[in-house]
Amino acid sequence: MTRTVRIDLAYDGAAFHGWQIQPGLRTVQGELARQLSRLLGRDANPTGAGRTDTGVHALGQVAHLSDLNTDEIVRIDRALAGMVPADMAIRGVREVSADFHARFSARWRRYEYRLGFRPDIFRRTLEWQPNRVLDRAAMDAAAALVVGEKDFASFCKTSSIKENNRCRVEHCRFAWADDSATLDMRADRFLHHMVRILVGTLEEVGRGQRAPEEMTDILATRDRRAAGAMAPAHGLYMAEVGYDKELDDPTYTVPGNIPDHTSEETP
Amino acid sequence: MTRTVRIDLAYDGAAFHGWQIQPGLRTVQGELARQLSRLLGRDANPTGAGRTDTGVHALGQVAHLSDLNTDEIVRIDRALAGMVPADMAIRGVREVSADFHARFSARWRRYEYRLGFRPDIFRRTLEWQPNRVLDRAAMDAAAALVVGEKDFASFCKTSSIKENNRCRVEHCRFAWADDSATLDMRADRFLHHMVRILVGTLEEVGRGQRAPEEMTDILATRDRRAAGAMAPAHGLYMAEVGYDKELDDPTYTVPGNIPDHTSEETP
Repeated sequence: MTRTVRIDLAYDGAAFHGWQIQPGLRTVQGELARQLSRLLGRDANPTGAGRTDTGVHALGQVAHLSDLNTDEIVRIDRALAGMVPADMAIRGVREVSADFHARFSARWRRYEYRLGFRPDIFRRTLEWQPNRVLDRAAMDAAAALVVGEKDFASFCKTSSIKENNRCRVEHCRFAWADDSATLDMRADRFLHHMVRILVGTLEEVGRGQRAPEEMTDILATRDRRAAGAMAPAHGLYMAEVGYDKELDDPTYTVPGNIPDHTSEETP
Repeated sequence: MTRTVRIDLAYDGAAFHGWQIQPGLRTVQGELARQLSRLLGRDANPTGAGRTDTGVHALGQVAHLSDLNTDEIVRIDRALAGMVPADMAIRGVREVSADFHARFSARWRRYEYRLGFRPDIFRRTLEWQPNRVLDRAAMDAAAALVVGEKDFASFCKTSSIKENNRCRVEHCRFAWADDSATLDMRADRFLHHMVRILVGTLEEVGRGQRAPEEMTDILATRDRRAAGAMAPAHGLYMAEVGYDKELDDPTYTVPGNIPDHTSEETP
């Protein structure tokens, strides 16, 4: 009973009240816990890498469940994928180091934010459709200004601001297509609502309400009021979480403590 | 009060119990009638070109509403698009000949059926994902065999078979992409469940259960049991309806009666 399993999963956030288990509401963690408990015949509540908000999607959420025996891991591997509802998909189940923690062991996370420039009812819960002409070059220039290690308090839900709001943004760039765009952003940590406030601000740059250079000033104020409106949840995708290779090895034991330098709330 | 309006619309069929108005159920015709009645201050029930089944989508459904005055048409044109729910889109509103009838005036209809070959939870209500390797050349060959004027009783829901089941199929062909395919089919009329039974049968050809040549034999039997299983509703899109140009002209009056050679049920 000292083994840990890692579960990689995707979900369509439209019909979930976010990740975190809540009584009486349909949540991803709740659905997963219900199926795992059925499968193991006892309470089993998985821990996720990030607590996505209502409507936020995941392509690569990671969860772990510890204190398992070998037979239980085999059962999860064989049966879980067939037990989850149609708006969830189990992408992988595998044993990892007993020290693996989906949230605390994360080294980086990657989020995508999808924009659609043509009204399309079939994609209305899968992308934000601002329905305005946006200046792509201005948005590219503005996005580039947030790369690096910076204090992102201006891009954090006010009630979630902590003592340390520094994030090391490794990349933040748009991939543009004819009728759509995806902002791809990777950082060691994300603050609550960070990607959504950033996208809302970038959209204001795109329609000429702000100059790209303002991004630097907004960061400097460390004041949420300086940034723009928050973009809707349904454009956001938790895309990928990065871990040290060693932790993915079930025979590995962590030498000492893992520092908590990651956030768990939806950006 | 002798004017007729044509309304072009799209809808995501996932949350509708089909087109036709039904007490206590959310239907496309019901939603449209509710908003039109609000707008006009009296009962207003539009007639559709086709009665799509539960889950079936529309890119180009056509409806008409007659016995209107000029002011009412102006109001529908200005306000209706902003009144419909997020899973419907009004694509056009315009006055047509008073003789225009969305169903009876139709000269041809075009349907699309979308297949996805990669499991994708985000497209689960937008395409059929059979999750099998299919023989594309065999399916192309089989699809080509239904083109022409033929009796399609074998591809019709048994309880909907009528005296005359002949359809003139103008084209029926797949457009293949790496991970998806769309069957595009145009005919003067479609029988109930015709596209879905056809796609289900073509899928059986694709996985080698039937030879492409069997399509000809299946048509010849005029027996529903000879054809394959019915493909799911959520892959089907009512794509386009064709009318004579004259009827789209509000000053045009039909010389004599229009023959009813079109069907109204979902294929």
